[in-house]
Amino acid sequence: MTDSLLPSWRDGATRSALLEFLDQVDDIPPDERVAVFDNDGTLWCEKPSYVQLDFFVRELGRAVTDRPELGERAEYRAVLDQDRAALGELGLERVAFALVELCEGMTPGEFGARVDAFFAEARHPERGVPYPQLRYRPMLELIDELRARSFDVGVVTGGGTEFVRAVSQALYGVAPEAVVGSQVGYELVRESGRPVLRRTTQLFGEVNEGAAKISNIQRQLGRRPVVAGGNSPGDAEMLEYATGYDGPSLALLVDHDDAEREYAYESVAGSFESDEAITDTAARLGWTVVSMRDDWSRVFDDS
Amino acid sequence: MTDSLLPSWRDGATRSALLEFLDQVDDIPPDERVAVFDNDGTLWCEKPSYVQLDFFVRELGRAVTDRPELGERAEYRAVLDQDRAALGELGLERVAFALVELCEGMTPGEFGARVDAFFAEARHPERGVPYPQLRYRPMLELIDELRARSFDVGVVTGGGTEFVRAVSQALYGVAPEAVVGSQVGYELVRESGRPVLRRTTQLFGEVNEGAAKISNIQRQLGRRPVVAGGNSPGDAEMLEYATGYDGPSLALLVDHDDAEREYAYESVAGSFESDEAITDTAARLGWTVVSMRDDWSRVFDDS
Repeated sequence: MTDSLLPSWRDGATRSALLEFLDQVDDIPPDERVAVFDNDGTLWCEKPSYVQLDFFVRELGRAVTDRPELGERAEYRAVLDQDRAALGELGLERVAFALVELCEGMTPGEFGARVDAFFAEARHPERGVPYPQLRYRPMLELIDELRARSFDVGVVTGGGTEFVRAVSQALYGVAPEAVVGSQVGYELVRESGRPVLRRTTQLFGEVNEGAAKISNIQRQLGRRPVVAGGNSPGDAEMLEYATGYDGPSLALLVDHDDAEREYAYESVAGSFESDEAITDTAARLGWTVVSMRDDWSRVFDDS
Repeated sequence: MTDSLLPSWRDGATRSALLEFLDQVDDIPPDERVAVFDNDGTLWCEKPSYVQLDFFVRELGRAVTDRPELGERAEYRAVLDQDRAALGELGLERVAFALVELCEGMTPGEFGARVDAFFAEARHPERGVPYPQLRYRPMLELIDELRARSFDVGVVTGGGTEFVRAVSQALYGVAPEAVVGSQVGYELVRESGRPVLRRTTQLFGEVNEGAAKISNIQRQLGRRPVVAGGNSPGDAEMLEYATGYDGPSLALLVDHDDAEREYAYESVAGSFESDEAITDTAARLGWTVVSMRDDWSRVFDDS
């Protein structure tokens, strides 16, 4: 019976843990069946750089064509030159915020259309395939099985909420309201006598990482997850929060240990604002660790 | 055919406008069928005071029994004494924030349980019935017809998000994630080594009124409404935003003009931070105004 479930998961302790959890779902009241997954590195590939970063780099290219003076700004210069030293010195956060400013003044619809256009033409720089083909097929299978058991599934990303929303339905069958991410500020302006919502350059609230993921899940979804999947220290609180549920729960950590089929890397920052490696955190707290190399018979949804 | 629709709406211009809109729904792509309704005074009775205020007053009564010194605080003293002069002087916002502080440190689950307990015993002070019986039946009928046409329906309230979420499914069939309201801050604390989310006394973001309703709808739902219903100046931006949709839309203003069956009152504050009465705004912008007295054959869902 269970042989047909999760076909891209190899037999072993991880697949057994998942099947065991799926068997226990009857012990969870239907309205408490909530599963949340980080996006980058958990549901799809985040190397050599975040997909969203590629989007903003392309937006920068467009913007500089129109306004060459933008190229003088340090953050943009470093991106355009792919100057790793300068990027490292400036830091990802500062560069990311500078890139977000490129979309200042866009309405949500205009921003979504830009994202749609990006996905229509962008290809992974090393594999040459459209980004949606780099979704992890085993994770999609797990989501399907959760949904078959009446789970509501959300995506909880450190990236921009609206970027993921533009594709979450197509990629994961996740509606916009179930995407929880970092939020941009909006300004309501009147144009031709009508109210129009336009993006500001300000972050609204905190970057959606670590403890913020839990507060934001509560604020936006109003429910607590009993299943959580992640891959980085920014997911640690969310995974631990799921296991605090008074009933069957599942915390899943995707370990990127497959240099051959994907990438092998370990996050530099530690869990819980300490220097503990996320895989050590997982071992200490008893989370289910997914070895991409050993546990997945297929990695990508491209075949 | 349409005679059987909206049975609690009397024949007339308002009912015709609703039926006309329902007839045009095919012109709206299914994923753009989003309807939002204010709660207090739009979906249920908000007089003589907000239901949520009654909840907090009861919480105050409990708290003062345990800690009598609370009664010395000006805001609480005014509430306990029902001192209208003092309440007016302090202002609703200051009093409301003081009351919200009573729930400091509660988890979302603990807060929800308090709200559930409240609804199990509370009765409307003048009618003596449980509050859910003071939902407006005609509005429930409209929501049903929208849902029958694949609309997603949300509640967008100036009140506390978590208060409404505790009952939104039972009252309106609206899931927690589709309730957009004023948000409290949360703090993640560790207890017995586990992360626990607890309420702070701080507001997160702005009070969900006026322009904030539009930003918060975008941030939380990620979609724009094409149907919006409200009753007060705090709903003006939301209603106007709905009518900015490039296709069939509906802005519905509930006018409380029925002193006999409900209450007759006009909001004191004006629309768009001006002194324009909301009914004048509706007339100027061509919204559909619902006269409770003339358009509704039945008001409450209590029969």
